[in-house]
Amino acid sequence: MSSLVLKRFSSTFTAKPIPSKAHHHIPLPSSSFPSGYALTGIHAGVKKQAGVPDLSVILSTSEHPTSAAACFTRNAFKAAPVLVSDEVLKKNGGWAKAVVVNSGCANAVTGKQGMDDAWAMVKATDALLPPSAKFEHQTLVMSTGVIGQNLPISKILSGIRESKETLNSDFSAWERAAQAFMTTDTFPKLRSRVFKINGFEYRMAGMDKGAGMIHPNMGPATTFKPKQLHATLLGCILTDAAVSPKSLQDALTYAVDRSFNSISVDGDMSTNDSIYALANGAAKGPLIDEETDKEAYEVFKKELTDFATDLAQLVVRDGEGATKFVTVTVKGAPSYRDAHNIASRISTSALVKTALYGEDANWGRILAASGSVPLLPSSSTGEPLTIDPTKVSVTFIPSDGTSPLPVLVNGEPEVVDEVRAKEIMTLEDFEIFVNLGMSDDPEGEAKYWTCDFSYEYVRINGDYRS
Amino acid sequence: MSSLVLKRFSSTFTAKPIPSKAHHHIPLPSSSFPSGYALTGIHAGVKKQAGVPDLSVILSTSEHPTSAAACFTRNAFKAAPVLVSDEVLKKNGGWAKAVVVNSGCANAVTGKQGMDDAWAMVKATDALLPPSAKFEHQTLVMSTGVIGQNLPISKILSGIRESKETLNSDFSAWERAAQAFMTTDTFPKLRSRVFKINGFEYRMAGMDKGAGMIHPNMGPATTFKPKQLHATLLGCILTDAAVSPKSLQDALTYAVDRSFNSISVDGDMSTNDSIYALANGAAKGPLIDEETDKEAYEVFKKELTDFATDLAQLVVRDGEGATKFVTVTVKGAPSYRDAHNIASRISTSALVKTALYGEDANWGRILAASGSVPLLPSSSTGEPLTIDPTKVSVTFIPSDGTSPLPVLVNGEPEVVDEVRAKEIMTLEDFEIFVNLGMSDDPEGEAKYWTCDFSYEYVRINGDYRS
Repeated sequence: MSSLVLKRFSSTFTAKPIPSKAHHHIPLPSSSFPSGYALTGIHAGVKKQAGVPDLSVILSTSEHPTSAAACFTRNAFKAAPVLVSDEVLKKNGGWAKAVVVNSGCANAVTGKQGMDDAWAMVKATDALLPPSAKFEHQTLVMSTGVIGQNLPISKILSGIRESKETLNSDFSAWERAAQAFMTTDTFPKLRSRVFKINGFEYRMAGMDKGAGMIHPNMGPATTFKPKQLHATLLGCILTDAAVSPKSLQDALTYAVDRSFNSISVDGDMSTNDSIYALANGAAKGPLIDEETDKEAYEVFKKELTDFATDLAQLVVRDGEGATKFVTVTVKGAPSYRDAHNIASRISTSALVKTALYGEDANWGRILAASGSVPLLPSSSTGEPLTIDPTKVSVTFIPSDGTSPLPVLVNGEPEVVDEVRAKEIMTLEDFEIFVNLGMSDDPEGEAKYWTCDFSYEYVRINGDYRS
Repeated sequence: MSSLVLKRFSSTFTAKPIPSKAHHHIPLPSSSFPSGYALTGIHAGVKKQAGVPDLSVILSTSEHPTSAAACFTRNAFKAAPVLVSDEVLKKNGGWAKAVVVNSGCANAVTGKQGMDDAWAMVKATDALLPPSAKFEHQTLVMSTGVIGQNLPISKILSGIRESKETLNSDFSAWERAAQAFMTTDTFPKLRSRVFKINGFEYRMAGMDKGAGMIHPNMGPATTFKPKQLHATLLGCILTDAAVSPKSLQDALTYAVDRSFNSISVDGDMSTNDSIYALANGAAKGPLIDEETDKEAYEVFKKELTDFATDLAQLVVRDGEGATKFVTVTVKGAPSYRDAHNIASRISTSALVKTALYGEDANWGRILAASGSVPLLPSSSTGEPLTIDPTKVSVTFIPSDGTSPLPVLVNGEPEVVDEVRAKEIMTLEDFEIFVNLGMSDDPEGEAKYWTCDFSYEYVRINGDYRS
């Protein structure tokens, strides 16, 4: 009998080197940071290693009111900081002046103690701000790290009180704040930009973190959508524009869907994913509001979306064990949601991701993944829709400006130049382009960003206890 | 700047040995195989290696009419053999007497040529049967292997013609037929059983294949559900019971949902997944029909479901790179579909599967995966339903009969005995048991079977070209 049993196992693994991510850690000019914010990142003692920042405090020091918006994980097991921050935003109608963040412990699945601890972090940070006649609380909170453990709350509260001494608004302060977000990240993720609306100059800066358990699906805070409550991706975007609370939330919801909700490292959604945006009006520009000046709002929304996309892509760049950064574009779908669902499935397919690691232009796996996603019923007739295989095309697009390589055209496999295919696949960056051919509507297009699946990923997440 | 950038990469990987799967390849008594079938497995030349079986021919030789049913992949890119077999079943109203199977080439995404080739396989196999006055075609076809390549059809047609000489019904013929199904499988997957209905004895035998691209979602053939056309998992179940075509299809649909549609190796759905069932009445028992004898039908359905589960589990046992066989049970859900969706998400989570490989009782990852699945709206009120985290419990259940280990009880983390947790996690077989606590209805329970994610998986699917 045993002659029929094949041996498939090899114990020797030749791993490709993981490319350095150091060049994504760049210096930023102080003039590009928004006015009216003071920040710090300190070691409070959540993490064992001395000196490693694990607590970030971000305050708006603007004399103008500071609007705030958030998108939270849709996971059913929302961590305490998610529930508490949503409550603060809701009570305040979209106003808040501070964000406090700890890494090393997620304060998730921690019951009543967890809620008490999250509230204690809010109150301690509130105490760093001038008292408000209008709002009981003015702080949003975020945590990231291990699930199911309680915070070392007294160390954190001491840290918050002491943070006052190191609050600053220079580049180094922004960088320390970003560092305190990090868990398995290999570099602090901080970006800034200057933009104009109607000739008026604004600035925006933000930090985020995340390398694993990255497949966010975040919805807006309950502030303006009471029926739709919906984090370990953490991000915080700060601008000195003045934006009305509802417009800030609407712009953030749109931006998050097309940025943070369009990335995947491992397909796993966290209990803590949270993106916060603060707009403090310190640039002294006119109020941006979608009702009163739609045009200005649209410019702001686009800037926010582009900026959020930059921040989101950094997470994929730093994905656990990642050697590739791959853009997945799906167009010609009946709807944005269909295009997004298919791009998401391609981006999370283990077979596609291991083929990316193997630098193999395996379009059969891309197609199988695409076809496994049921389309939504027609929005006009409610009829079920199906992909027409004879209309589907797949192309590999290199990032170096050389010619794209069509591998499937209108459902017919091309005779592929394997040498050329290999040239593209060995690049660190390239794009998988799938055209379903069902519609010309630009709304039928979505982008996703993903990385490959390497030996290193298995080591980080499987071998770490040994 | 670069001092902030951490190095995370290690190039040395100590892989655990993959346990031998040889003991799942077992001898079966000839008396356990159903009467009235003749089979063979031969080398037709689809696969390069001489002598390796790549073509299987299965004929019903019963004098009674042979009913046939199928479940096919719901992938939008259905392979030609799927479309052709569905057409044959539909035209015949659920009657067919033969199955022809090739491995080495999937005949998927092969356009018109692919359809012509699949029909040619049907016709060549038809020619091995006595002509039928009633049916133009009597054969179902299946293919598995590489996507996007045409079949070496003349070799296959010669093979079918020559197969007549080796058709037999002894154990060796069944085993050769099962061998011809194999691709990356390490052992032929063949099982048989004897069962009784109302004191009458029947037999059932079947073979399947699959080790990667395993996350089937198959729906019934269009025979009886014309609006719902919906498989590289291949399986074929043969019985000598007499079952009416509709009852055979209904029983198979139920069985496949709770067996083949409840397994995952890598979360990727194929373009070719197909399960066929033939019932040839050669045991000369009374006709089994759900309308005329519900009780007998229910016994048959249960036997078929149990048998399909045995076959499906063999695929997970032989999962690419698998070192673990893990049962995921979700109970207390509002519906079977909710329980099944959550069990599926836990079973496909890269973080859960790498933790299984690392033998780490990481219940936080299990919980995060569970919570990422939206529940269906209430079947009675249509209201959205959400998991109540305070009612959820998670337990690890060892397969050796020793005590289960609760890690989360009603949303509260237990103080876990890490030594005991490690004892359970080092077993090859164990169960992850999640109770959502939302209902006591037995319908709110579903089981899934999955394996771990190892270095070997990455090698098989990423390194194979190098």
